[in-house]
Amino acid sequence: MPERLNVAVAGYAFMGRIHTAGWAQAAKFFGTPARVTHVIGRNRANTQAFADAFGIPNVLTDWRDAVADPDIHVVDVCTPGDSHVDIAIGALEAGKHVLSEKPLANSVEGAERMVVAAEAAKARGVRSMVGFSYRRTPALAYARQLVQEGRIGDIRHIRALYLQDWIADPEFPLVWRLDKDAAGSGALGDVGAHIIDLAGFLTGHRLTGLTGLTETFVKTRPKLAEQTGGLTAKGSEERGEVTVDDAAVWVARTDRGALATFEATRFAVGRKNAMRIELNGSKGSLAFDFERMNELEFFDFTQPATENGFRRILVTEPEHPYVGAWWPAGHGLGYEHTFTHEVKDFVDAIVAGTDPEPSFAEGLAVQKVLQAVESSKGDWVTL
Amino acid sequence: MPERLNVAVAGYAFMGRIHTAGWAQAAKFFGTPARVTHVIGRNRANTQAFADAFGIPNVLTDWRDAVADPDIHVVDVCTPGDSHVDIAIGALEAGKHVLSEKPLANSVEGAERMVVAAEAAKARGVRSMVGFSYRRTPALAYARQLVQEGRIGDIRHIRALYLQDWIADPEFPLVWRLDKDAAGSGALGDVGAHIIDLAGFLTGHRLTGLTGLTETFVKTRPKLAEQTGGLTAKGSEERGEVTVDDAAVWVARTDRGALATFEATRFAVGRKNAMRIELNGSKGSLAFDFERMNELEFFDFTQPATENGFRRILVTEPEHPYVGAWWPAGHGLGYEHTFTHEVKDFVDAIVAGTDPEPSFAEGLAVQKVLQAVESSKGDWVTL
Amino acid sequence: MPERLNVAVAGYAFMGRIHTAGWAQAAKFFGTPARVTHVIGRNRANTQAFADAFGIPNVLTDWRDAVADPDIHVVDVCTPGDSHVDIAIGALEAGKHVLSEKPLANSVEGAERMVVAAEAAKARGVRSMVGFSYRRTPALAYARQLVQEGRIGDIRHIRALYLQDWIADPEFPLVWRLDKDAAGSGALGDVGAHIIDLAGFLTGHRLTGLTGLTETFVKTRPKLAEQTGGLTAKGSEERGEVTVDDAAVWVARTDRGALATFEATRFAVGRKNAMRIELNGSKGSLAFDFERMNELEFFDFTQPATENGFRRILVTEPEHPYVGAWWPAGHGLGYEHTFTHEVKDFVDAIVAGTDPEPSFAEGLAVQKVLQAVESSKGDWVTL
Amino acid sequence: MPERLNVAVAGYAFMGRIHTAGWAQAAKFFGTPARVTHVIGRNRANTQAFADAFGIPNVLTDWRDAVADPDIHVVDVCTPGDSHVDIAIGALEAGKHVLSEKPLANSVEGAERMVVAAEAAKARGVRSMVGFSYRRTPALAYARQLVQEGRIGDIRHIRALYLQDWIADPEFPLVWRLDKDAAGSGALGDVGAHIIDLAGFLTGHRLTGLTGLTETFVKTRPKLAEQTGGLTAKGSEERGEVTVDDAAVWVARTDRGALATFEATRFAVGRKNAMRIELNGSKGSLAFDFERMNELEFFDFTQPATENGFRRILVTEPEHPYVGAWWPAGHGLGYEHTFTHEVKDFVDAIVAGTDPEPSFAEGLAVQKVLQAVESSKGDWVTL
Repeated sequence: MPERLNVAVAGYAFMGRIHTAGWAQAAKFFGTPARVTHVIGRNRANTQAFADAFGIPNVLTDWRDAVADPDIHVVDVCTPGDSHVDIAIGALEAGKHVLSEKPLANSVEGAERMVVAAEAAKARGVRSMVGFSYRRTPALAYARQLVQEGRIGDIRHIRALYLQDWIADPEFPLVWRLDKDAAGSGALGDVGAHIIDLAGFLTGHRLTGLTGLTETFVKTRPKLAEQTGGLTAKGSEERGEVTVDDAAVWVARTDRGALATFEATRFAVGRKNAMRIELNGSKGSLAFDFERMNELEFFDFTQPATENGFRRILVTEPEHPYVGAWWPAGHGLGYEHTFTHEVKDFVDAIVAGTDPEPSFAEGLAVQKVLQAVESSKGDWVTL
Repeated sequence: MPERLNVAVAGYAFMGRIHTAGWAQAAKFFGTPARVTHVIGRNRANTQAFADAFGIPNVLTDWRDAVADPDIHVVDVCTPGDSHVDIAIGALEAGKHVLSEKPLANSVEGAERMVVAAEAAKARGVRSMVGFSYRRTPALAYARQLVQEGRIGDIRHIRALYLQDWIADPEFPLVWRLDKDAAGSGALGDVGAHIIDLAGFLTGHRLTGLTGLTETFVKTRPKLAEQTGGLTAKGSEERGEVTVDDAAVWVARTDRGALATFEATRFAVGRKNAMRIELNGSKGSLAFDFERMNELEFFDFTQPATENGFRRILVTEPEHPYVGAWWPAGHGLGYEHTFTHEVKDFVDAIVAGTDPEPSFAEGLAVQKVLQAVESSKGDWVTL
Repeated sequence: MPERLNVAVAGYAFMGRIHTAGWAQAAKFFGTPARVTHVIGRNRANTQAFADAFGIPNVLTDWRDAVADPDIHVVDVCTPGDSHVDIAIGALEAGKHVLSEKPLANSVEGAERMVVAAEAAKARGVRSMVGFSYRRTPALAYARQLVQEGRIGDIRHIRALYLQDWIADPEFPLVWRLDKDAAGSGALGDVGAHIIDLAGFLTGHRLTGLTGLTETFVKTRPKLAEQTGGLTAKGSEERGEVTVDDAAVWVARTDRGALATFEATRFAVGRKNAMRIELNGSKGSLAFDFERMNELEFFDFTQPATENGFRRILVTEPEHPYVGAWWPAGHGLGYEHTFTHEVKDFVDAIVAGTDPEPSFAEGLAVQKVLQAVESSKGDWVTL
Repeated sequence: MPERLNVAVAGYAFMGRIHTAGWAQAAKFFGTPARVTHVIGRNRANTQAFADAFGIPNVLTDWRDAVADPDIHVVDVCTPGDSHVDIAIGALEAGKHVLSEKPLANSVEGAERMVVAAEAAKARGVRSMVGFSYRRTPALAYARQLVQEGRIGDIRHIRALYLQDWIADPEFPLVWRLDKDAAGSGALGDVGAHIIDLAGFLTGHRLTGLTGLTETFVKTRPKLAEQTGGLTAKGSEERGEVTVDDAAVWVARTDRGALATFEATRFAVGRKNAMRIELNGSKGSLAFDFERMNELEFFDFTQPATENGFRRILVTEPEHPYVGAWWPAGHGLGYEHTFTHEVKDFVDAIVAGTDPEPSFAEGLAVQKVLQAVESSKGDWVTL
């Protein structure tokens, strides 16, 4: 084990940027023994500009060069989903620990190959993890702790929604996330994947079957004139077909007898990043909304009814997960902190010689649920 | 048309009580020309006690006596669902206007017979209405108005939940609402019926098909030792089987291309009467929770993004539906006001010679959705 | 004691109307042995119309006739403040129990005379009460109970605001409430009186001194063309002087060492009836906003910090004050219920032969605080 | 002007840590041409450990060495208030740009000397700024913009509270912040200073006079056994006197006719960092609570009453101040971002050759208000 891990980040867009910042913050606030030494991007000039801004000493234009470099210990895959399989498997086979952004792959078959590679690498002490970063939100990590302590009791209802509205305007152009080849699926895979993962993370339940629907409300959109970034792109006059879902809704049963409802959409006008989870159990309930990410609502059913109610916990106390490294109570954290916590946990596991979570196998399980939702069309699919 | 309608209320429990108070309040605050002259109950002593407290001059122990009495103009059916068919049809055939509590009947077949009777009576100028009182919540009546004015645009998502927790304790006894013969179904018919009706009322959309699940989490409960009222009953040591659902979840498509999700449960610990509706359209969104019944959240997507957000409208301005008859802005109304508004609207229609809404036919349509949910078991049911 | 008390209500505007409805509801829902038999108003036609709508058998045009009528047991004074002294003293001296709307009088001197009359009447078993109806909000009655049980501990902070906006438009006309002769003071006496009373009711603390400011933001307004009711009046082109305060702010000390801050205003644009109270003690905190009158927020400082937070109690459980007579949990009450509870409590005390609260003496104490605020002009006033 | 400014941070506790991280983030996300090259601390070992963790190349144990070093361009003063005067004046005289944490000084006299030094330095192109970092909260910067655009109209009410509870336990020990010599004052200077500054920043109004009270609820506390950090210190058995206020409340008039109320306390049990500001104007209102720092509530009084209400703006759109450099809409920022924005703005001004705000003179003005509150004792103090 080197004194400090050298990390190569593949990709420098939204995810690459936030991961890179996360590695630096983890070193400062958690003493995480790692640093980003390389960034990988196909456009050298743009990649170099990013490296300069973020203080990264080396630039590569081909991920194969990173895989071949013995001084690199970790590859952090922040590229779009269609390249995950090759980079991750290549890196694992070369003995690099791999953190892969979600979704694991754009297909179940690709994800299965990644799991095989991860298992093989694990036998050689090489670690892998899929980046469901929301698990590292302090409020959600604390919610899981309450569930594990039995504070919610037997869970009867899981209610998980991920509501956004960034393509509600029918003139928003045909960006890569609306193209099935590049993105795999639409709202389903992009944000639905998160709530599938979190439902399992929080409750420990596994979905045994589901039935649901997907819909594409806006069938054609202006073709992209100029790609200026996922959320602010400009369109041309020519229109092309949207090949992914705009929204997906499904209901499911779990292996421990709960009913679960899910909804993933980019057409919930006014909801910007409303990832909402509510659990109702025999002893209590929990409710969370990422738009208020520093809060967790908890109802303790064992308290006297007259004085009972959902309590709004500010998850900013030093005893809360991850919070002790940051600021005094009431001084909230932001979205990017989930990535700082993610890389910290990843390196902690590497150093301890344990398996970081969520594993590639967990990423594959999410992929299978996504596939089941796509294929259901209103009929029951057993998982 | 008599100067003032004489009303016979059948039943004096929860619904009979709130209807009776509603008739008196409607006369005072809206000048509604009607008064409760008779109450009908099988136990004479209890019925008389109720009549004394609520100032009702006459007591009857058999609804047939009301139907036969030429001085009675209106029969208001507040008994459990298994008696609705007989009373309503008997009253309609005798030329009485009928207001029937929901659900219209415990079976589709019974509801269909009521619709036939209502159509026949209508030809003779006799009016009928089913009591989906939540339509008369000012915030929801105003929400419908915004939809009808096009402020929400084309609706893409309907999200309707009715969350309660009053039987979450497995030792809560086997009251009549947990018995299929008396109640028809469980959470589905009791509270699910409301959100089905409201989804249609608010949007004008009709469900074309659905898929869903029901579940009974607690299979047996203490038999009833002493019926002390639906929510505070005491149980004995012997247990009996729960024959209705504890919860139901389903997703649907509408005739105008929206996705709809529904959930009805009595196991959402901490949620007391959380009837929540959210609509997302192409021009805006609306959100409502009956636990805050004087508020409506409205997002107007046509406003500039920087200064936009869900606005919390206090639906207490004099211009809001029904509110002008009551108090100044900010001085909220309560649950019972929906019944005052309901009987006001019913009498307004009788006086005007128009058909009050919702009709028995609308009640039947809800019943058919309930049946579809029960039969789906995770597969698609076309409506 | 008669089997049922006959009540004469003086006034039939906003307060007269809501009191009259409250008396009827109290009889129905609490079995309160009283009924409104007379209404008193100067304009016979209007008074008769009100009596017809609300089912009151007798109409009087002079309060002296009510005082002289031996069949009347209670006089309920709902007229503007400038007539309280005469009516209340007249009625008390004639042996009628008196419920007087707040403020007790328009001057400390008038209030003092009422207290003398009340004390003298009390010796003869004649009861009196001032109508601070907000005390009968279930959430506030429950808040007081929590304080009395020691759940908040030693109170350090009292924060009481009453925010409205109904005259924020400078073209709103010069209604009687903006005239010092008729109304005594502006926001201070109208709504400030409520938060002074509630601060004492909830905490048991007494203000020992204060310092504060008042302000009239809009100095002249259109003279009243036509009085169509307090909140919807129309103005003429001629302007007249506003002779009362638009807002008042003050800070105070209490006899038990707390700091208290108060604000009463009709210029808090967007706040319709935001009567907000927060208490911070050594063991807990309470927060309330009348715009959400069915909710109370409670922070229990004795709970572990990690799982602690303000809990939103829906004060709709059957064990909560007054609520058992009404509807199931989660089915909220409205503004007018506070008046139903008020007359119920008043009659309960008469029947029990005890002194109803708040007494005229308490009403006088509030009046003295109002006077102190008016005279402070930023300097300390000892109470 | 060097290509990149070298910054020496004085202090490495709470403020030193967050400033240091802020400098690094500003470089990455805003391209701010500056980096922390030196950290100054009296204990060399601790200072070195901090430097290692945060990647700072040089450690100094005496601020005079920084002042003397020609390679240092900026001194960032993050030490306790009693050392600000000497360090800031020393640095300014040596030609270093100075960012000083608030409060500017522990006394008006000290602050006045700093202003003199800043004015003299300014003549030589040397810049200075006081660190009221909350101004750089996007929601508050946007609130100011709305005020400046006239969206709130003439402001009538300013309501500013800063509520915390971290010393509510009487056994919390006597840390330096409770010692007048070290801290200057208690809640008043620590958190009250922020709301004084923000009231002026947001509205442009100046306080012309005030009246208020301060209180020390807990007079003695356990002496400090071991200083383990401000909020988690352990106490010994011996008790010492608390020499600062626990809370302060005051009301004021402004130069443009508004009434302002202020409260600063560390005894609002359950409130962790509730810095709350509400403005009510003739055209609208704004409300903010730092516990939900990504939200701003806005009421636009020019909209029709029926559809009006406070709208909850998520201040996370790319067009909002500072936000474009960060994440997509709905992905919130945290407390520390205010410091990143602060140093960015400071350097922008240095580069542009303009005066950064807030100036030392503004810091002095806040100091004078603090002094007035302390001296008022319930009587009027003209400012």
